[in-house]
Amino acid sequence: MIIILKPTTAAAMQAKLIAQFGTTHEVFTHANRIAIQGLTPAELPADVRAASTDLLTDVPAAVQSSRLLHPEDTIIRTPHSVIGGNHFVMMAGPCSVESAGHVERMAEVAKQGGATVVRGGAFKPRTSPYSFQGLGEEGLRDLRAAADQNGLDMITEVMDDEHVAMVAQYTDIFQIGARNMQNFSLLKAVGRTRIPVALKRGMSATIDDVLNAAEYIAAGGNHQIMLLERGIRTFDNKYTRNTFDLGAVPVLQELTHYPVIVDPSHAVGTWELVTPMAMAGVAAGASGMIVEIHDDPTHAFSDGPQALKPKTYLKMAKQAFQLHDLVQSWA
Amino acid sequence: MIIILKPTTAAAMQAKLIAQFGTTHEVFTHANRIAIQGLTPAELPADVRAASTDLLTDVPAAVQSSRLLHPEDTIIRTPHSVIGGNHFVMMAGPCSVESAGHVERMAEVAKQGGATVVRGGAFKPRTSPYSFQGLGEEGLRDLRAAADQNGLDMITEVMDDEHVAMVAQYTDIFQIGARNMQNFSLLKAVGRTRIPVALKRGMSATIDDVLNAAEYIAAGGNHQIMLLERGIRTFDNKYTRNTFDLGAVPVLQELTHYPVIVDPSHAVGTWELVTPMAMAGVAAGASGMIVEIHDDPTHAFSDGPQALKPKTYLKMAKQAFQLHDLVQSWA
Amino acid sequence: MIIILKPTTAAAMQAKLIAQFGTTHEVFTHANRIAIQGLTPAELPADVRAASTDLLTDVPAAVQSSRLLHPEDTIIRTPHSVIGGNHFVMMAGPCSVESAGHVERMAEVAKQGGATVVRGGAFKPRTSPYSFQGLGEEGLRDLRAAADQNGLDMITEVMDDEHVAMVAQYTDIFQIGARNMQNFSLLKAVGRTRIPVALKRGMSATIDDVLNAAEYIAAGGNHQIMLLERGIRTFDNKYTRNTFDLGAVPVLQELTHYPVIVDPSHAVGTWELVTPMAMAGVAAGASGMIVEIHDDPTHAFSDGPQALKPKTYLKMAKQAFQLHDLVQSWA
Amino acid sequence: MIIILKPTTAAAMQAKLIAQFGTTHEVFTHANRIAIQGLTPAELPADVRAASTDLLTDVPAAVQSSRLLHPEDTIIRTPHSVIGGNHFVMMAGPCSVESAGHVERMAEVAKQGGATVVRGGAFKPRTSPYSFQGLGEEGLRDLRAAADQNGLDMITEVMDDEHVAMVAQYTDIFQIGARNMQNFSLLKAVGRTRIPVALKRGMSATIDDVLNAAEYIAAGGNHQIMLLERGIRTFDNKYTRNTFDLGAVPVLQELTHYPVIVDPSHAVGTWELVTPMAMAGVAAGASGMIVEIHDDPTHAFSDGPQALKPKTYLKMAKQAFQLHDLVQSWA
Repeated sequence: MIIILKPTTAAAMQAKLIAQFGTTHEVFTHANRIAIQGLTPAELPADVRAASTDLLTDVPAAVQSSRLLHPEDTIIRTPHSVIGGNHFVMMAGPCSVESAGHVERMAEVAKQGGATVVRGGAFKPRTSPYSFQGLGEEGLRDLRAAADQNGLDMITEVMDDEHVAMVAQYTDIFQIGARNMQNFSLLKAVGRTRIPVALKRGMSATIDDVLNAAEYIAAGGNHQIMLLERGIRTFDNKYTRNTFDLGAVPVLQELTHYPVIVDPSHAVGTWELVTPMAMAGVAAGASGMIVEIHDDPTHAFSDGPQALKPKTYLKMAKQAFQLHDLVQSWA
Repeated sequence: MIIILKPTTAAAMQAKLIAQFGTTHEVFTHANRIAIQGLTPAELPADVRAASTDLLTDVPAAVQSSRLLHPEDTIIRTPHSVIGGNHFVMMAGPCSVESAGHVERMAEVAKQGGATVVRGGAFKPRTSPYSFQGLGEEGLRDLRAAADQNGLDMITEVMDDEHVAMVAQYTDIFQIGARNMQNFSLLKAVGRTRIPVALKRGMSATIDDVLNAAEYIAAGGNHQIMLLERGIRTFDNKYTRNTFDLGAVPVLQELTHYPVIVDPSHAVGTWELVTPMAMAGVAAGASGMIVEIHDDPTHAFSDGPQALKPKTYLKMAKQAFQLHDLVQSWA
Repeated sequence: MIIILKPTTAAAMQAKLIAQFGTTHEVFTHANRIAIQGLTPAELPADVRAASTDLLTDVPAAVQSSRLLHPEDTIIRTPHSVIGGNHFVMMAGPCSVESAGHVERMAEVAKQGGATVVRGGAFKPRTSPYSFQGLGEEGLRDLRAAADQNGLDMITEVMDDEHVAMVAQYTDIFQIGARNMQNFSLLKAVGRTRIPVALKRGMSATIDDVLNAAEYIAAGGNHQIMLLERGIRTFDNKYTRNTFDLGAVPVLQELTHYPVIVDPSHAVGTWELVTPMAMAGVAAGASGMIVEIHDDPTHAFSDGPQALKPKTYLKMAKQAFQLHDLVQSWA
Repeated sequence: MIIILKPTTAAAMQAKLIAQFGTTHEVFTHANRIAIQGLTPAELPADVRAASTDLLTDVPAAVQSSRLLHPEDTIIRTPHSVIGGNHFVMMAGPCSVESAGHVERMAEVAKQGGATVVRGGAFKPRTSPYSFQGLGEEGLRDLRAAADQNGLDMITEVMDDEHVAMVAQYTDIFQIGARNMQNFSLLKAVGRTRIPVALKRGMSATIDDVLNAAEYIAAGGNHQIMLLERGIRTFDNKYTRNTFDLGAVPVLQELTHYPVIVDPSHAVGTWELVTPMAMAGVAAGASGMIVEIHDDPTHAFSDGPQALKPKTYLKMAKQAFQLHDLVQSWA
């Protein structure tokens, strides 16, 4: 149950309720609201009821992620970016960090297109154990340098709880990959940090699964969470790697206050389709996008076929900002 | 195999090849091209080979639908609409024709939003036999009148081959529903007419399935085909009725010359999501949209929850045309 | 709502209720039960309530298909077969009728393996319009002759409502194909006959969709319905054509009184997997199976890769009957 | 490429090839076979070619898991169990370890039904962070004691690489959960042990995904792997939690030498369906099953609805062994 309290006495009532139910129930507060999981209206003290303006009883398990507790948008601020609400963030970079020089050049291109975040994988979750697994810590150093040299934030994937502390030394934003969306140990580990987390939707994760996974991070006290729609697995993958579920953008925005970002590159898996799908994502209302770029896709260490060449990226990015402006003009 | 012939001798070579292979193979011509299904380059007469500029051997079964045979966009012209290419068509109306008066009012609203086609179901494919099955021929008459009174084309579903001749007396465009996408008898029947056909993608139809279904219509000589993406069935339908597969828009546009139209109403099933998904569809490059409207959704005979009220529709439609203009400015 | 009436006065109460609600509601009776769709307990006359032993209010739309109205198994009797309950029916034959001689030989093999029904397609729903579409009425004649010569029933697909009367002259059992599961015109047409109907589950049909499709047949007065599980479309079809959903067997058996038959051939699409999946289907409790056989699969007119050769079929069939006996011994 | 060598000189040729290609390619040997990933026949020294009986060039990435390199069944021997080939292993126990006494009683029941392995979760991957997360190491101690007291092996889930060493002190078999199937850090960690691993198929994992995940374990040198089919996520989960993909059993058995075990409890999620699906799994040819039991399902700490009560389990287990005997009699 969520109790909406009268503003004047909200703080006092919250303190009282925490004292009374805090050891037996999950209790969360936000502004003049308080959620007490599992409590029924009948169990509510009379004075609290009198001090409340509304009781919400149909509350999801992922209560901290819900707009019922936290109605206004979460806005995440990193050194160079503002993520959420009616802001639009562009994140771009190579799939894998391949070398210091290469990622530096790609960061420059990213910046040129209006990106404020450069992406790159140093630890790569590859389907086969014999595929390139990433440069490891060296890749993190290279990406950090490339970001700094261009005045950008960096985002990179962390694959297991043991590496969280190490990756934390370099990155501005953790990325949790689709395959790890329900790696609960990892979610708890990044939840114990205060570094923003970009959580990718799993290949067959329902909307509720995504929100519950986000809740694992929030449960640790880290509320700087953004959600990445990157395509789901369906019955047809002949022409696209996944099915880009753009309906998830407004659905998530209605249910949760966390920013929703789209990843058209992984959603479609082939560069020719990235621009139209990126545009569709912006038009659907996303707060940003993350896109893969490469100057020589044929020789990319991973996911070359879905990388945009610099010229295509620059054109796409320009369109994306134009389109976001148009969408904002309708609000 | 598709043979691209030198323009000067194309007609003669086509005639020769039809004479030689027309009774034993499926043969189709378009401009200076000819497709001979199942033929191998080795079987090709030397003079034909000499008169050709290219031989395409990786040809899909649905050859008439393929851009390999027919590279340029198919443009469909109905009395009030131009469908395909860089044109944008708006189709709007109630899910079901409910009465002459109601559909007339809805046609007016549709027109006001820039629609040139009014939609409405007179024969309804309902999951349960005990649900409202449509007004039948009376509904067709009402929709025809509503269209005529407003200077609009009409589109309506035909559910079986027995009704094709009757529906043909009223409609400008046949709609084939998702559940009937592989009702091959029905596809053959509309293929024998020369009335444009809007073919809805089946709930679990692959891209190739859609093209093969279109080919059934083309095989009868009717080439005025448009394809409707209306959402596919996936593992999560808690918040959306289907998953809107917008990747299908550019994929189909690359493979086939038929116009691709989006149906955000059926894709999401809930009106709050229709506008963002409609925008996403336009941004993805669709040649038009078909959308359900109703002035009193709670009392709609069918699919009320996904109908836009007039005011919302008018705002959405205005945005859609603005967005299409922006997309066109990038071409 | 379903009302379970005291046996002694059931007939009188049913008559009374039909008189009172028969023109305004959908009303169905079975034994001492009566279903009145949309009625609430409060609207029930006091004497009916007094004459009832139970009121069931959570009733599905497909009420005639439900065990709530019709608790006991439907048993279908054709000249040579008993289908449903703890009986086990074997149906076998080629995918397509290819010639009188061939289908006659295949019917002999089918019979040898214990089949009482021979299958064969004369009208073929093929993905491509240019594939073999079946022998038509000639095929029906050939299959009828093959069945008669071997003392077997015949089952064959009917693809559209226009052909129902013609196919009815030949067949003992209509088959409705997966692609036509929601071709409601066709379902209504076979529902007007009194010939048993084998309804194949659509590729992405939910359990409720299957039951509602069956209800279309029942709504016409034809209650001789059997349901065929033939695999559903999922995200992986590299090694199997479809995903055989054997959970549907006990689920359907719990919800409906109609016999459930498995079709391992279409479910997997490759003959090596047919025997283990056929065994799994029997162990899951199916009332029978339909299986494709061919003496020369490489040259089969359709679906050769999934056909069992006679020797393999005979071994599989023997195992199936042994397994069914074992399953029955546990009941 | 896999080279099948003449037995007499196989060892010498393998040594030679390892010396030549071992630093530049992934090289694996088994009996008289050697796999060199990425090598083409043309690069093969002439004497090796002369000493070979066959060259297999269509080799999957997951080569150590493939029957092409390792044709015979892997048989895993734990203190009380033989897993693989034509043996049949029963694993049973509660979803969660709830207390020392409870798991001990459940282990007794498991044993009574013919189980040689007792299951129980001490670390639970729960969708919500606020659900019961398991007893942790105390649960491991309790399960170990219950196993020892009844002369059983124990299987339990390990959720992250940090816990591998600790769980290894207790368990006979690691279980990797469906949500962690592509947690590559965890797979590598259990791959460094020599404890058998039961790898559960992910909810939307393709057959190839499963084999590649197994390869991560094998790449670490741990070849004692068994694969668990536990249902996949599809479009219909109204009546079953997942769709039990029994076709995966013979498909995996054809492709890999690792034992395939079925988990009907998680596949269906409701106890009434467990017995028919367990039977279907045995009939499909599985080498064993893992099943959840509980004496008081309504009060189970997790997954109560799918637990079999002792009496039902004992009946099901008896049937399973009878059925396995019948299946073996056909081999």
